[in-house]
Amino acid sequence: MNVLFLGTGAGIPAKARNVTSIALQLLEERKSVWLFDCGEGTQHQILHTPIKPRRIEKIFITHMHGDHIYGLPGLLGSRSFQDGKDKLTIYGPKGIKEFVMTTLTLSTTYIKYPLEIIEIEEGVIFEDDTFIVEARKLEHGIPSYGYRITEKDLPGPLLIEKLKEMNVPAGPHFQQLKQGETIILDDGRSLNGADFLGAPQKGRIVTILGDTRKCETSIELAEKADLLIHEATFGKSDDQLAYDYFHSTTEQAAKIAQEADVKKLILTHISSRYQEHHIEGLLTEARSIHPNTELANDFDLFDIVRGE
Amino acid sequence: MNVLFLGTGAGIPAKARNVTSIALQLLEERKSVWLFDCGEGTQHQILHTPIKPRRIEKIFITHMHGDHIYGLPGLLGSRSFQDGKDKLTIYGPKGIKEFVMTTLTLSTTYIKYPLEIIEIEEGVIFEDDTFIVEARKLEHGIPSYGYRITEKDLPGPLLIEKLKEMNVPAGPHFQQLKQGETIILDDGRSLNGADFLGAPQKGRIVTILGDTRKCETSIELAEKADLLIHEATFGKSDDQLAYDYFHSTTEQAAKIAQEADVKKLILTHISSRYQEHHIEGLLTEARSIHPNTELANDFDLFDIVRGE
Ligand SMILES: [Zn+2]
Ligand SMILES: [Zn+2]
Repeated sequence: MNVLFLGTGAGIPAKARNVTSIALQLLEERKSVWLFDCGEGTQHQILHTPIKPRRIEKIFITHMHGDHIYGLPGLLGSRSFQDGKDKLTIYGPKGIKEFVMTTLTLSTTYIKYPLEIIEIEEGVIFEDDTFIVEARKLEHGIPSYGYRITEKDLPGPLLIEKLKEMNVPAGPHFQQLKQGETIILDDGRSLNGADFLGAPQKGRIVTILGDTRKCETSIELAEKADLLIHEATFGKSDDQLAYDYFHSTTEQAAKIAQEADVKKLILTHISSRYQEHHIEGLLTEARSIHPNTELANDFDLFDIVRGE
Repeated sequence: MNVLFLGTGAGIPAKARNVTSIALQLLEERKSVWLFDCGEGTQHQILHTPIKPRRIEKIFITHMHGDHIYGLPGLLGSRSFQDGKDKLTIYGPKGIKEFVMTTLTLSTTYIKYPLEIIEIEEGVIFEDDTFIVEARKLEHGIPSYGYRITEKDLPGPLLIEKLKEMNVPAGPHFQQLKQGETIILDDGRSLNGADFLGAPQKGRIVTILGDTRKCETSIELAEKADLLIHEATFGKSDDQLAYDYFHSTTEQAAKIAQEADVKKLILTHISSRYQEHHIEGLLTEARSIHPNTELANDFDLFDIVRGE
């Protein structure tokens, strides 16, 4: 489980930063990649990464601004052209379905895989055996969602050493024990799986927010997350600009991270007004409040480590 | 007057070639740039050129396939964001208006300059004092237009030497002579401007075609053009593929150039199946039929020289 930043800029593409897209790579967990937003040129960025478009299983759109959606039709078409066959699901605000269907239809783009488009409301928008995704509305002038992705706890490992000490012979019943079942051995002993499992592995929590002002909902979505990805369109001193344009500053993002008690914060959606030599300063502003903070550049990869 | 290739690939973007866009730079002629097609990432390509988005005066769309239009909404939005104020006109097939308006509206993109979108039919689609643009339908499965851009002839230069030899004093009447008027000098002599003008400068003709099979209309649009830009999605041996997918081969493009008696042919829209080492061979196929042929790479710039 790691996160690969495909675009870390704001509003319009610049040489140094493309417009927004974030790939949450779940290759070990579910052999797939989830994309968060898809600004223009996202498929171009992907060409420079190991991501295979056919591996993209879900695309979550935070909001309908162009710098977050204009890359969708191209990526969807190319995924088909490159023989993507597995179903793809897009989650996003009202309007996303009309956007995708109109662009594909007018360009006579025929998609050869099942494509589902879900216009979301607040709440749990996806759940299966391994993950839950919850969406909540932030503050951005237009509906902008934040997503809290919770990995379910994994059952603890089977305590092979303990079984060996008790002279339990290896065999298919190990698998049953691992699933917590009770088995009866040939020698008549009854063993409860629960007694032979280590502590469960805690699932990770990743919170990825759309463009937003500093708001309470962000804190709730990020509560004790292993990783929070928060926009920082502006530096600390431009808080009035941030407020006026429904964006956040470095300092505000760091305060959210602090108040939500997250392990790690990554800043993204950096305005093109900031050049290479400003970046250290922006990062310092955030780190003075939340020390474990990074600022993402295009193609940066961050592992999401399991907590203790 | 020159042509700058922003994207020379076919169908989907590749590292080496972006999807289609061609900039006809008319900086001396009208201080503006005309764009032909606008595939995804065109605004990104422009970042690496001297083109200013505010200078883009007209965008001609050849057909509605995604690789020719998906870059439009982003470019239009960025042109506004970067303080473009002058009117922009888009010409294209039926559907282009719905495509642009739907994408801009759903993304709440507010364009601060006058934007006109004209859904064209065959015929003369634009004419002013300096240029005429004619559009005709090619053969591509869906409506795909070719454009013939004709620069009007410029009046010949005033023959200053001849006037000097005749002891005509310099003055405002030089300007009248230049415009072909008849003037009477203080000494009573009557001079007809037509007698003091050199040969008119022949306007140039540039023909830019959308995706197409080899067809008669292409020859008519390209008739004696100074420059023909023709797609060559496939090499000579893949003529069956070219036919099936409504595209052309290198050889077919060269035959069109030959039959239309054009001065120069430039091939573009090259399939990503062809690697760097194939290019020389593709070019040789075309040059064996039409020697004055080039194959465009992204960011190639070609001057369009005035004929004798
Ligand atoms: Zn944004
Ligand atoms: Zn094409």
